[in-house]
Amino acid sequence: MTDFFKDIPEIAYEGPDSTNEFAYRHYNPAEMLNGKSMEDHLRFAIAYWHSFAWPGGDPFGGQTFERPWFGDTMDLARLKADVAFEMFRILGQPFYCWHDADVRPEGATLAESRSRMEEMTDYLGQKQEAQGTRLLWGTANLFTNRRFMAGAATNPDPDVFAYSAGIVKYCMDATQKLGGENYVLWGGREGYETLLNTDLKRERAHAGRFLQMVVEYKHKIGFKGAILVEPKPQEPSKHQYDYDVATVYGFLKEFGLEGEVKMNIEQGHAILAGHSFEHELAMAASLGIFGSIDMNRNDYQSGWDTDQFPNNLPEVALAYYEVIKAGGFTTGGTNFDAKLRRQSLDPVDLILAHAGAFDVCARGYKAAAAMLADGALEAARAQRYAGWDSAEAQAMLGQGLDEIAARVEAEGIEPEPRSGRQERLENLVNRFT
Amino acid sequence: MTDFFKDIPEIAYEGPDSTNEFAYRHYNPAEMLNGKSMEDHLRFAIAYWHSFAWPGGDPFGGQTFERPWFGDTMDLARLKADVAFEMFRILGQPFYCWHDADVRPEGATLAESRSRMEEMTDYLGQKQEAQGTRLLWGTANLFTNRRFMAGAATNPDPDVFAYSAGIVKYCMDATQKLGGENYVLWGGREGYETLLNTDLKRERAHAGRFLQMVVEYKHKIGFKGAILVEPKPQEPSKHQYDYDVATVYGFLKEFGLEGEVKMNIEQGHAILAGHSFEHELAMAASLGIFGSIDMNRNDYQSGWDTDQFPNNLPEVALAYYEVIKAGGFTTGGTNFDAKLRRQSLDPVDLILAHAGAFDVCARGYKAAAAMLADGALEAARAQRYAGWDSAEAQAMLGQGLDEIAARVEAEGIEPEPRSGRQERLENLVNRFT
Amino acid sequence: MTDFFKDIPEIAYEGPDSTNEFAYRHYNPAEMLNGKSMEDHLRFAIAYWHSFAWPGGDPFGGQTFERPWFGDTMDLARLKADVAFEMFRILGQPFYCWHDADVRPEGATLAESRSRMEEMTDYLGQKQEAQGTRLLWGTANLFTNRRFMAGAATNPDPDVFAYSAGIVKYCMDATQKLGGENYVLWGGREGYETLLNTDLKRERAHAGRFLQMVVEYKHKIGFKGAILVEPKPQEPSKHQYDYDVATVYGFLKEFGLEGEVKMNIEQGHAILAGHSFEHELAMAASLGIFGSIDMNRNDYQSGWDTDQFPNNLPEVALAYYEVIKAGGFTTGGTNFDAKLRRQSLDPVDLILAHAGAFDVCARGYKAAAAMLADGALEAARAQRYAGWDSAEAQAMLGQGLDEIAARVEAEGIEPEPRSGRQERLENLVNRFT
Amino acid sequence: MTDFFKDIPEIAYEGPDSTNEFAYRHYNPAEMLNGKSMEDHLRFAIAYWHSFAWPGGDPFGGQTFERPWFGDTMDLARLKADVAFEMFRILGQPFYCWHDADVRPEGATLAESRSRMEEMTDYLGQKQEAQGTRLLWGTANLFTNRRFMAGAATNPDPDVFAYSAGIVKYCMDATQKLGGENYVLWGGREGYETLLNTDLKRERAHAGRFLQMVVEYKHKIGFKGAILVEPKPQEPSKHQYDYDVATVYGFLKEFGLEGEVKMNIEQGHAILAGHSFEHELAMAASLGIFGSIDMNRNDYQSGWDTDQFPNNLPEVALAYYEVIKAGGFTTGGTNFDAKLRRQSLDPVDLILAHAGAFDVCARGYKAAAAMLADGALEAARAQRYAGWDSAEAQAMLGQGLDEIAARVEAEGIEPEPRSGRQERLENLVNRFT
Ligand SMILES: [Co+2]
Ligand SMILES: [Co+2]
Ligand SMILES: [Co+2]
Ligand SMILES: [Co+2]
Ligand SMILES: [Co+2]
Ligand SMILES: [Co+2]
Ligand SMILES: [Co+2]
Ligand SMILES: [Co+2]
Repeated sequence: MTDFFKDIPEIAYEGPDSTNEFAYRHYNPAEMLNGKSMEDHLRFAIAYWHSFAWPGGDPFGGQTFERPWFGDTMDLARLKADVAFEMFRILGQPFYCWHDADVRPEGATLAESRSRMEEMTDYLGQKQEAQGTRLLWGTANLFTNRRFMAGAATNPDPDVFAYSAGIVKYCMDATQKLGGENYVLWGGREGYETLLNTDLKRERAHAGRFLQMVVEYKHKIGFKGAILVEPKPQEPSKHQYDYDVATVYGFLKEFGLEGEVKMNIEQGHAILAGHSFEHELAMAASLGIFGSIDMNRNDYQSGWDTDQFPNNLPEVALAYYEVIKAGGFTTGGTNFDAKLRRQSLDPVDLILAHAGAFDVCARGYKAAAAMLADGALEAARAQRYAGWDSAEAQAMLGQGLDEIAARVEAEGIEPEPRSGRQERLENLVNRFT
Repeated sequence: MTDFFKDIPEIAYEGPDSTNEFAYRHYNPAEMLNGKSMEDHLRFAIAYWHSFAWPGGDPFGGQTFERPWFGDTMDLARLKADVAFEMFRILGQPFYCWHDADVRPEGATLAESRSRMEEMTDYLGQKQEAQGTRLLWGTANLFTNRRFMAGAATNPDPDVFAYSAGIVKYCMDATQKLGGENYVLWGGREGYETLLNTDLKRERAHAGRFLQMVVEYKHKIGFKGAILVEPKPQEPSKHQYDYDVATVYGFLKEFGLEGEVKMNIEQGHAILAGHSFEHELAMAASLGIFGSIDMNRNDYQSGWDTDQFPNNLPEVALAYYEVIKAGGFTTGGTNFDAKLRRQSLDPVDLILAHAGAFDVCARGYKAAAAMLADGALEAARAQRYAGWDSAEAQAMLGQGLDEIAARVEAEGIEPEPRSGRQERLENLVNRFT
Repeated sequence: MTDFFKDIPEIAYEGPDSTNEFAYRHYNPAEMLNGKSMEDHLRFAIAYWHSFAWPGGDPFGGQTFERPWFGDTMDLARLKADVAFEMFRILGQPFYCWHDADVRPEGATLAESRSRMEEMTDYLGQKQEAQGTRLLWGTANLFTNRRFMAGAATNPDPDVFAYSAGIVKYCMDATQKLGGENYVLWGGREGYETLLNTDLKRERAHAGRFLQMVVEYKHKIGFKGAILVEPKPQEPSKHQYDYDVATVYGFLKEFGLEGEVKMNIEQGHAILAGHSFEHELAMAASLGIFGSIDMNRNDYQSGWDTDQFPNNLPEVALAYYEVIKAGGFTTGGTNFDAKLRRQSLDPVDLILAHAGAFDVCARGYKAAAAMLADGALEAARAQRYAGWDSAEAQAMLGQGLDEIAARVEAEGIEPEPRSGRQERLENLVNRFT
Repeated sequence: MTDFFKDIPEIAYEGPDSTNEFAYRHYNPAEMLNGKSMEDHLRFAIAYWHSFAWPGGDPFGGQTFERPWFGDTMDLARLKADVAFEMFRILGQPFYCWHDADVRPEGATLAESRSRMEEMTDYLGQKQEAQGTRLLWGTANLFTNRRFMAGAATNPDPDVFAYSAGIVKYCMDATQKLGGENYVLWGGREGYETLLNTDLKRERAHAGRFLQMVVEYKHKIGFKGAILVEPKPQEPSKHQYDYDVATVYGFLKEFGLEGEVKMNIEQGHAILAGHSFEHELAMAASLGIFGSIDMNRNDYQSGWDTDQFPNNLPEVALAYYEVIKAGGFTTGGTNFDAKLRRQSLDPVDLILAHAGAFDVCARGYKAAAAMLADGALEAARAQRYAGWDSAEAQAMLGQGLDEIAARVEAEGIEPEPRSGRQERLENLVNRFT
């Protein structure tokens, strides 16, 4: 046991009136709701990268965090894993997630990187078993190393495509080995900086083929989890091809993958694409491709990916409302893709940032469930569209413009607008948040 | 002949050294380029709505333009048409475009609106024939009237769907009657204000069915033009379903329409979606759905649709570069969906705003054509992707992740990054603009 | 009594567990907090313009609201006032606010507009007295009429400056006559569309002189209320001179007015300037120019002034936290500069939008007061800056760079960063919201 | 001589028809315009940091540039200086700029950092003398090191204030020693991440006192250059106190520094503040605080500081138009605060990015000068405000609201709006760009 978190107690549920900073006030894992525990509804996961691999830099400043495990040796990688699992024990969440680059030092060759990954997944597997923490998903880091500066699958150099294939292969293997429930692709470098040097059509074709290869390999190795794509509009590339859910849907259709791939939707990326989080969730649900969420928060007034911890209850509640309406999580879950502000230097900050985020999410989930149980919001929606439930309205959908036009003229139809009642519905939501 | 533009001469080409405000310095319709006249390359069209139907209001102020044809009678509608065609004569562009609501006063019923439209299209047809101005496209205004406040095809009330079908039917009839080369749909109200009262899935299904009806009716009446959808991300709705080209592509695929519908891409809407104009053009071309453009300019620092006249040569040149690479216009063209600033009160402002816009577009088009003829930009692009032209690279696209990974390890492949040369390519563009 | 709100009961406090849509769950006007009633802490006001004068248009659509008082006669203006005061009675808030243009039809001349204003303020004065509703502030509409399209005090035409002076004079007279507690200036047209036609220096000089005249006239007539300026960055002008609090402060200093004028700060305008509402409040407080607030909400992802009703408790609480720290309201108050969404057609929407907003504000105010009473947030802040309380640190502020530098070198000072604890403070706030 | 730029020739002027990538097509230093050489009008400077100290990282990826001088030794610092001056020789621009951290490795203590700076400025001084390149300005890096994570002058820890004073002292000394013509302050960390842990008033007071110390020290050492502040709205802090020109002006007035400090205005920072570059320039000129410019370009659709090389002629021309109207540069100049895209790996990219930027600026400057010489734009502006030149209008500025109001009523003044002619003026500009 390391002493990084020494003197920090395990966080336990004490109820909403607790003023103990080291207690959950809303997240009660064992609490049952509609026949399922909160732990199983929310399926919290912690992101290895932000908490253990990020040094605290920003575009104008370097490392602020001084962690004993920073460095490039396998020993330090094991120390990092030890501390990570101590945090998982303290927080008690059921899942975690990683990129290869988070858990092992980069090797001099692909073979060495792979071999180090295998060694580290042995180590992580033992820790998973010992502690009961599970892997929600694995993914490959195809963006940090300078070889990816012009893309991974979409790189002008086919050798980078090949190298990326090699990495993704061993990351999928590692995910399967550790019982991961999903495998995620994030295309931060799959896009372009300037159209002047870019063959957009060719790049997208390569991206499509790469994703097909991922799906083929999943079936070849019998991986039972879901393949997820995480959309984001811009940064680090000026434009990324996986802009938002609707864009990725078109991409999946173009390459025949809409039945094979689902979405991992991040709050902050939704915001950067000009949408609300709930929009992206509802869109994915309506297209049948909802998978999992990366929970965090983006500053609304910056154009970069702030990855802050969520803290706004009304917003979180509306997001979970869409999650529940989409059927809740199956393989997916709530991954906290959130990082400390770079001034939050202390080990205790790492613990309490997550604890606060767990609480606001649990509270939001319960509020969403209560809104659905109450039924008033859904009833209002149903009533607003009730006209479409008539046989005549349904029949109209099978007719032609001319038939419909003739009927409007014959019957002298003049629709009368009805209130959309937005503010009343907002008031209703505020009763629950 | 009205006296609205009295004393304003027809605008003729005088060459780049002219200091005559009432002359084209770059737009020379008869000038031949690659075997086709500039008129036929650019296919300029004027938008009836901004120039003749917009009173000059903004969110904090009312009408600033005082036009003799403002009002709701058929006589005033004819006067408006007279003035419009006088402007077309003065400017000499080959095309124009309309919504039904621009050219005829709203009737008390759908039947009356249709009948007025028929009367006005008789009148416009005579004017077209007399003057030689042609219709680039027609479209329906399904957003101004309060009946559309909650959408047209996506309205919760099926009667609004029906009413909208009736309008689109007569607008398609009118477009065909006037020899229009395209029919455009713009979904400003097809979207939502708040997800709280919205059934997103149902609304999108209705929108998909409506677009299928449009395509079916096109074939029924034998309309030879193209059906175009114009994307836009937000305003007037908080979220519009036709967010951008990639989103609309997914929508077309979902409803089986990708072979039937193309894009009308507006500069300002590209900007509002977080893209560059050239991105949207390149994306549409790569997906095989490029159709036509709405040329204008959006202020980069406002979040609303400013519809200013284009005036930035380097930006216009890069847009036409993508148009030419996409094969140029077939049924499409350059529609100036641009409006005067509300302080630009004078008839002469209306003429000279268009003349200046024609000039910057002609200059941009010629610059783009020269860049392509020069070939250095395309050569640099080809060279950047040259690795993919090898047989080995092409073969890789047929392999699996594991085969590729094995090869990378076996051959010890370590890709070496090469410069993207962005600034040098930007310098190259500046040689032409 | 009109029947516009017939069957709508007066809204009374029923407590947080009430499920009655027509009750306050949090706003209890008589509730005492720190020796003052909630009514006196919050000083709610309703804005005449959004609720009674706005027809529901947006940039792509016209009127959606059909109100019996819409029109240009004095009779209709009186009907409007009757309905307004009925709403004030139903909601029970202590204050309201107006522009001249909200309460009287425009006259053919300045003299007629003034005379109508005098007639209407007689009428409003009787209603105020009868009902007990008071005027928080009056202001002049110097933006809707086309004469203001290029500015009021900053217009290139001195006659518009003069005309504006005439309007402001009678609006200040009317405000004084009705016992208004403040007079507000909002410079929507004081700015520019394009620098190409603008003499920025001259325009700002005229704006400065105009504001001096307002202050001089205030003293001349013995008006006891505060003069307030409301900042906003853009829309309707491309750039407005009163961009934000810091900008206005510089302007006041330039024209010697920082002791005479305070700020009316609107949530939505803060957002449009790239700030948070609480930033603008804290900035005004730190500069000694905090006055009053326009409470509403701006969509974070649009670039226009959405003026929605507030509904996000955590945000509202943080704003009131700054208000309380600034000493609370003296002449100022909470004016709901908020309008219904244009689809919210019904009289009941008007009532319940306000009722919900009152509730979220009351709840936010109480949360803010509780946070301050708890003291943990202020204690953390004090502790973070505690180093500055030492005599040595204070002495340093009187030294020169070279003295300080010498001491750093002599003592080998190397500062050790300490955690900013942002997430822990966010958790703390969430205990109260 | 190093071989970093080997085989790259010195860039010389060859005229607009040259197709030589290694030639100036527009920047002809010796060319005379209005009695002064282009070199003296434009006063080009190169920024040491972007070109020689930046490794190419972005938020999702690390170093892409592999430069032989990267590392922390004094020998490498001298190699870096050698290469820098070789680039200055090749490009032939008269000036350069630095932060201390660009030119010397950080020491273990302030004393060591200072001593290294002294050693390096000896070295740079010899190179300046040998080559004739001069120092436009020096500045201190108070943002990269983790000690500044919570601010420099505004840090909660007074030791950081002291340490910052120490650095600024030796940077001012170094600037004076090298004949620098200005000293610049950039407050990237002077602002806050969250108001929850920030005492905004106290921080601003410390920032004000710090700037006073800088001015006092300038006078103490007899530094003849200008003290400049560079505004920026956000990133790296969420909010920076030096938001924009108007904000800094208010700050200077608050601390009595408006006669001592001028502005260094960066294109990209203007954009991030919601302004155009020319707005910031015109604002500074109107307030009498225009000093110098940081020329670059910000992507309009990202919210971060992209610092790209300028390449848009019309925009550059409008900026220089304001510079010339402000009287041109005295101590200031055109510093290219621009960095290569991180994929532009080659030495030749570094040279040609600057060469292209020099060219677009020279071309823009000449276009601006020609517009002013032509006079049509200024004549239109003068005519628009001509009404204010009358004695009556000037007299009005000395009157009171009531006098003016009485005159408007007596004379029945009703202003008639006149066209703002925006599009015609835009056309006019296009004749020169
Ligand atoms: Co994520
Ligand atoms: Co993110
Ligand atoms: Co358009
Ligand atoms: Co538009
Ligand atoms: Co307001
Ligand atoms: Co507002
Ligand atoms: Co700069
Ligand atoms: Co910058």
